[in-house]
Amino acid sequence: MVKVELICIGNEILIGKTLNTNAHWLAKRVTSLGLKVNRITTVADDLEEISSAINEALSRNPRFIITTGGLGPTFDDKTLEGIAKALNLKLEVNDEALKMIEEKYAQYVKEGRMEKAELTPHRVKMATLPVGAKPLPNPVGTAPGVLINYENVTVIALPGVPSEMKAIFDESVVPVLRKEAGKVIFYEAGMEVLGIVESEIAPLIDKVMHDNPYVYIKSHPKGEEKTSRIELHFSTTSEDVETAKKRVGRAIIQISDMIKKKGGKIRPIKTSG
Amino acid sequence: MVKVELICIGNEILIGKTLNTNAHWLAKRVTSLGLKVNRITTVADDLEEISSAINEALSRNPRFIITTGGLGPTFDDKTLEGIAKALNLKLEVNDEALKMIEEKYAQYVKEGRMEKAELTPHRVKMATLPVGAKPLPNPVGTAPGVLINYENVTVIALPGVPSEMKAIFDESVVPVLRKEAGKVIFYEAGMEVLGIVESEIAPLIDKVMHDNPYVYIKSHPKGEEKTSRIELHFSTTSEDVETAKKRVGRAIIQISDMIKKKGGKIRPIKTSG
Repeated sequence: MVKVELICIGNEILIGKTLNTNAHWLAKRVTSLGLKVNRITTVADDLEEISSAINEALSRNPRFIITTGGLGPTFDDKTLEGIAKALNLKLEVNDEALKMIEEKYAQYVKEGRMEKAELTPHRVKMATLPVGAKPLPNPVGTAPGVLINYENVTVIALPGVPSEMKAIFDESVVPVLRKEAGKVIFYEAGMEVLGIVESEIAPLIDKVMHDNPYVYIKSHPKGEEKTSRIELHFSTTSEDVETAKKRVGRAIIQISDMIKKKGGKIRPIKTSG
Repeated sequence: MVKVELICIGNEILIGKTLNTNAHWLAKRVTSLGLKVNRITTVADDLEEISSAINEALSRNPRFIITTGGLGPTFDDKTLEGIAKALNLKLEVNDEALKMIEEKYAQYVKEGRMEKAELTPHRVKMATLPVGAKPLPNPVGTAPGVLINYENVTVIALPGVPSEMKAIFDESVVPVLRKEAGKVIFYEAGMEVLGIVESEIAPLIDKVMHDNPYVYIKSHPKGEEKTSRIELHFSTTSEDVETAKKRVGRAIIQISDMIKKKGGKIRPIKTSG
């Protein structure tokens, strides 16, 4: 599967002010497009930290590195500088990006949201990209996303504001990832097991995964205090949905029988699969 | 400030099934204790991935590495194996950990949750720790947490189930971190809230904690039957008492106004701060 790394940039995540819902959303989207997220890294709004994180990711040879955060106009938006440093590229004002930003501010003035559309240094900063980068239009905010093809990796920088990150991803990143993913689809299903504990289910999972080599099963204990409740999550990838469904179905039937024999109860749960 | 790295282990995070609330909670708690979270890394349930992530973290010289996830009885719980590999330590059955686990299962049998308390290989696995490790009691689940002092770093492994992770952290990890935070002082204050229920206070706490990133607020419901009485506990850290007092004071004023608007009453209580 095509490897993807996510790098989230922002002090607000490291001090526990912001819950990293961006990573969660991206992980889900990337997985459902048939690619594999190998690692998620969160670092501070710090030039050295960002460029080290990019360099370390590069050393693991992913096909894509997607960053979130740090694309705005303020002093602590350092993502593009960090990427440029890691890839040893210069920064320059990108005409296409500048035009996108000019148009945004002209539109804000038209809508009465601000008085002047002038390109202050802070605004030009958002159009200052690594040489050779392609700006990705931001349908809901100002700072464009950025795509850089560098040797065998594509680095994609998205804003930290969730609505902007999602809009750019859906509009400009999905087509790129889908093309690269090939035909692989990701399929998942879940069930809930009641009445037996995780250490009793562990050997059953071993057996079923052994018998179903393409199916991955993970247990998530959910029991509170006296009740034992475990979610089992089944997933597989395949070139067609029917094969994936069959594989997961076989594993579910096998483990359900074993659980019932142990006195446990099962019930299906909804997943996105 | 004392550097901390968080490493979260779990495929469920990388495929976007689980939102990483553990990292958020730990980042907030560690910050409010006066230490600094430098990086948060999420990797798969994979031996090589875990040990690489630990090694990479070690190369950045944090004082603490805290991991979450992968301590349970199943085949894909590989955290301790990964830590042992990274630190070049052997794994062995830890008597203290085994005793903790034996007592848990004996208790489950007593409560009628299972028939036999025998130590199956999957259960012994949870007591198989790197040589020299110290198990940390799990007040709400089975798998103990693990603490390893290795050269200048302390590696702490916590379970992935949030209630277990939090309970072990509060009971066994907080004292260790607080001691190490050094000159940073820990300041706390409390108040009692009467006349409104905890679920009404919860969103107010969220809002005030969001607006006061260095302040941690915990609620302890104390009400008996018909009377609603909740203790709120405020804490922060700073290098001087005045800053700490101001921070907590601001949070107390903000939440007091919100509580009064909801029809609640407040009164101060004595804490150790």
